[in-house]
Amino acid sequence: MKIAVVAPSCTLTPAAAQAVQEIAASRGDAELVIHPQCFASSGHFAGPDVQRLAALREVMSDDSVDAIWFARGGYGSNRIAEAAARDLPDAARSKRFLGYSDGGFLLAAFDRAGLGVAHGPMVQDILRSGGRAAIDRALDWLVRSDPASLEPGLKPDGRAMAFNLTVLSSLVGTAIEPDFTDAELLVEDVAEHEYRIDRSLFHVTGSASVRRCAAIRMGRMSEIPENDPIFGSDAETIVREWCARSGIAFGGFADIGHDAANRVVPFRRATA
Amino acid sequence: MKIAVVAPSCTLTPAAAQAVQEIAASRGDAELVIHPQCFASSGHFAGPDVQRLAALREVMSDDSVDAIWFARGGYGSNRIAEAAARDLPDAARSKRFLGYSDGGFLLAAFDRAGLGVAHGPMVQDILRSGGRAAIDRALDWLVRSDPASLEPGLKPDGRAMAFNLTVLSSLVGTAIEPDFTDAELLVEDVAEHEYRIDRSLFHVTGSASVRRCAAIRMGRMSEIPENDPIFGSDAETIVREWCARSGIAFGGFADIGHDAANRVVPFRRATA
Repeated sequence: MKIAVVAPSCTLTPAAAQAVQEIAASRGDAELVIHPQCFASSGHFAGPDVQRLAALREVMSDDSVDAIWFARGGYGSNRIAEAAARDLPDAARSKRFLGYSDGGFLLAAFDRAGLGVAHGPMVQDILRSGGRAAIDRALDWLVRSDPASLEPGLKPDGRAMAFNLTVLSSLVGTAIEPDFTDAELLVEDVAEHEYRIDRSLFHVTGSASVRRCAAIRMGRMSEIPENDPIFGSDAETIVREWCARSGIAFGGFADIGHDAANRVVPFRRATA
Repeated sequence: MKIAVVAPSCTLTPAAAQAVQEIAASRGDAELVIHPQCFASSGHFAGPDVQRLAALREVMSDDSVDAIWFARGGYGSNRIAEAAARDLPDAARSKRFLGYSDGGFLLAAFDRAGLGVAHGPMVQDILRSGGRAAIDRALDWLVRSDPASLEPGLKPDGRAMAFNLTVLSSLVGTAIEPDFTDAELLVEDVAEHEYRIDRSLFHVTGSASVRRCAAIRMGRMSEIPENDPIFGSDAETIVREWCARSGIAFGGFADIGHDAANRVVPFRRATA
């Protein structure tokens, strides 16, 4: 099992790379190849667009690579997502792709293109409190499709998708928007004010294409900054309200979020 | 000339209301009626949705009112915009509407519904440094369509629209999205990181409907928080890049922004 790590968004911390390499070595069930591009830096990004895109396309085209694991989020994968999903090499079709947060732009573009993507922990998550569990969960899924890694509410036969809410709001209506039809749509967010969560849900649930989803399930909305004045509602109430307004079913909670407990959500259960 | 002030987003500061009342009285060219709803408060908002909507619909239906001026922005007009633009009273069709920032949700919904809207200063702007000029500019436009109030680059015969970029990104694809076809689209933003400006422009210029606009002109992007790490680009470069990528013409700069210099942009020049 060969897993390639690339950084389509921000630069991977060397300490995180080393720690996860050691975990993979100690487990002995996967060869982890961390692409040197992960440590490139150009302003906000892990190298310029052209370098991040080239590294991603390189591992997508590599027949020896079984899975592609995004190093970390941050911001920037949207800048290369449309190009990354164009003229796909055959080698990309047999791989699985794993990431979340800003990586959601690639999950969307690749799902739209028919590739096997999943929302779940990334390499940089080793630096979180309890991060070892997140890394093992990700590797357990990448290496052997361990059902224990999966978000526990996923239906055996249904389609599911998971996104950071702000990322989802930023891709709706673009060329990388995936097909939400009949999918359970799991959303999480981090470090956004309640008024921004409310605004993003207004936008997302106001999209005709998102309204084709089967239901919205609410992941963790964490590190919400204090609102001045007090917003007057909480995240759960906000999610329920926009579901009710838009006619989308509220499907309950989801065990995903910007934390070490983040479970894996494969977009196409056939690849899980 | 009777101008009604309502607050579809956040609560108006009493000091701002009093100062602008005094300016209107000293000018003597307009009767300014500040609706009591402007001072209501419910969490983040100037009263609950139902109260903000009722006040707005009340003045829209009032034959004695010539213009409706939004008190201030903040957040919340999106929550009532679709309802506010539904089953329009005839009385609303002869009025002009003025506001910006979060008020952009109403500008969009009302423009879509055929009403005469303009992007420009609001009552609360009196509290800005040099705010008196903003208030006079707004009143000069509301009362006598003073051409000196207008954004100087507006083409005599062309359609123009102006929005806060983040608000625009949050309404694209929803039921209140206006028709951008052949319009010059002026955008400004405030207090958003460069990565967020970049992400909003990715989203907005990635919309097929926005791509029907004639050009994008760049208003002021102010109070940009420091990016960590340094983003590596500036707002102008970002706007130019997304215009180039999307095939939308970059039309230069626009004299609009979250400041006292903010000029008026009527969406339909026929009403200017």
